[in-house]
Amino acid sequence: MESDSSTFTKLLLGPGPSTVPDRILKAMANQTISHLDPEFFKILDETSENLRLLFKTKNEATFAVSGTGSAGMETVFANLIEKNDKVLIFNNGLFGDRMADVAARYGANVLEYKKDWGTSFKTSEMINQIDQCDNLKIVAIVHAETSTGVLQDIKNIGNHLKEKEILFVVDAVTSFTGAELKIDDWGIDVCYSGTQKCLNVPPGLSPITFNDRSLEKITKRKSKVVSWYLDMNLLQDYLGSNRIYHHTAPVNMLFALNEGLKICLEEGLTSRITRHNQVGKYFDKKLESSNFKPFVNIDESKSLPMLKSLILPKDFDDSLVRLKILNERKIEIGGGLGSTKGKIWRVGLMGCNARNDIVDLFFETTRDYL
Amino acid sequence: MESDSSTFTKLLLGPGPSTVPDRILKAMANQTISHLDPEFFKILDETSENLRLLFKTKNEATFAVSGTGSAGMETVFANLIEKNDKVLIFNNGLFGDRMADVAARYGANVLEYKKDWGTSFKTSEMINQIDQCDNLKIVAIVHAETSTGVLQDIKNIGNHLKEKEILFVVDAVTSFTGAELKIDDWGIDVCYSGTQKCLNVPPGLSPITFNDRSLEKITKRKSKVVSWYLDMNLLQDYLGSNRIYHHTAPVNMLFALNEGLKICLEEGLTSRITRHNQVGKYFDKKLESSNFKPFVNIDESKSLPMLKSLILPKDFDDSLVRLKILNERKIEIGGGLGSTKGKIWRVGLMGCNARNDIVDLFFETTRDYL
Repeated sequence: MESDSSTFTKLLLGPGPSTVPDRILKAMANQTISHLDPEFFKILDETSENLRLLFKTKNEATFAVSGTGSAGMETVFANLIEKNDKVLIFNNGLFGDRMADVAARYGANVLEYKKDWGTSFKTSEMINQIDQCDNLKIVAIVHAETSTGVLQDIKNIGNHLKEKEILFVVDAVTSFTGAELKIDDWGIDVCYSGTQKCLNVPPGLSPITFNDRSLEKITKRKSKVVSWYLDMNLLQDYLGSNRIYHHTAPVNMLFALNEGLKICLEEGLTSRITRHNQVGKYFDKKLESSNFKPFVNIDESKSLPMLKSLILPKDFDDSLVRLKILNERKIEIGGGLGSTKGKIWRVGLMGCNARNDIVDLFFETTRDYL
Repeated sequence: MESDSSTFTKLLLGPGPSTVPDRILKAMANQTISHLDPEFFKILDETSENLRLLFKTKNEATFAVSGTGSAGMETVFANLIEKNDKVLIFNNGLFGDRMADVAARYGANVLEYKKDWGTSFKTSEMINQIDQCDNLKIVAIVHAETSTGVLQDIKNIGNHLKEKEILFVVDAVTSFTGAELKIDDWGIDVCYSGTQKCLNVPPGLSPITFNDRSLEKITKRKSKVVSWYLDMNLLQDYLGSNRIYHHTAPVNMLFALNEGLKICLEEGLTSRITRHNQVGKYFDKKLESSNFKPFVNIDESKSLPMLKSLILPKDFDDSLVRLKILNERKIEIGGGLGSTKGKIWRVGLMGCNARNDIVDLFFETTRDYL
């Protein structure tokens, strides 16, 4: 691993945070500068520009929210929702549940179309559901369900919604830079991610992008955005060319993100996504001859390349074994959440950890504990 | 300075962020570990314990919010306020304004008692104002107004409120560990700070403490806390012994905070506060023979030791000179905000920068530009 030198070094093969390359740790450890320093504005500009390249968008309002991925989710709903706005959430996991909870807190009339954890939605059934709802304002879905390892096909939803003036919100916390994601081409109005997954940047920021259509809804709000900290109307005065002080940006986290984005672009987004896909397939292949079974049907290619969920053998002491592997082998593996707790493992192969030799290491290590 | 080695090294004498010692930068650059790793829980426990020592409180609910100081402010009001709660804010600066804005967004009936920027409130007039209000739920005030450099005496307010069942909220973003602050003795129910001031930790976290009285108001709420990200009812399940996943904590920022708190405790809180006071007085003395005038009346000892506000000479090109000093001497000085923009400077002497030789350097440097 690249980061053997530090005190806590463990190989992070959980659902995130992922292992952080030394280059990023080093960038983060640069001496802090002011959030109002022109040199810092350059970094903010560069970060936004590079996020645009990776999100495949021309959206001006592309930046990093000063909080983790969940703060990104909250930024979206806090800004877009006005009281009683009808929001349809396609929910097949914990982060779908979270979307529904957050949207309801901000006053939305939440409709949920639910499917079992581990399954995904067909485009036709999504469009069918959408077309059955009157007066929808927002449709929201998780691209990569971190709780289950499911990849959701979202290519053909956004452009269908464009004609209907419904905003399309996508949670790409786990997929960003590890799976294909095209904000503009796919008609996604708002998308947020996290730094601690395929970007290999420590947790603490949420890359986000709003298109003009979504910003128009925000600027035309009748009520103030409840959250001052996440209010896009205020944030844009700092993030745009005005550079008016809002809150003190987490400067060093932005140094880290900036470096992480550079690493992505040096590799090339297409190569990076291909690598994640190849390593994901290599994992699936090795899985066949292991004692685990896939939680997500891999034949339908709905299994995330960067996060593999595995059904544990019967009578398996999940938390004890994971703790042993963490302590004895210094490898972190993720457990299940909610009803899958104790029943599945979640194995992250994110960014610099998307490597065949790491897949080999995972299977060799776990074999010793099964 | 301790951190000469890094790329962006500048001496940060603005209102924050302050210069970060190498020890803290190094701690922050440790390899990330999982937010659910028992080793990380130890760090969270240690951080809370050390925050308690520095806040001078026994409050169990003492931790760092995953956002900057303004997120701390928002956490307080988002959790404490239910619709139409009457909140009295003593407002003598930008952060008083911000409190009023944030409280109103969360549905409070906000009463403001305002005084001119640069002045402070007498205890007797505060108590007088409080006693005139019926049915108050919360009284809120800024201990150290970062926009003006005013230190507010708050020693005798909290205990007066205890008898009235009114919660006392204090913003100690700039004063924490640089000026005397006694949460329990002074009857403060909730207090929040920031990491990027006297702690010398990069921006990104907000140390906060809630006592049982304030938590009771939160657990007895009739309505859900609007903010999911900042909901204390959810946060406590992660921060308490349950350790249930809520959001992914900004792990490396917590490494940094943990180290920053250790540095404070090694020096000793009393010594640290004394040092800030002595350096503040030394600054005031040198100010007398300079071309600047104090913005805050220093005779009344209402001037912050760690943040000095200075009236600029007439016809002085504030932003040009500050930019020149930043570029040529690598020293950051803060400008004024709101109506003081272009009229005052704000000079931070925070944590490791509270040193007489830095005061000398400030006056020597600025003399060349006046």
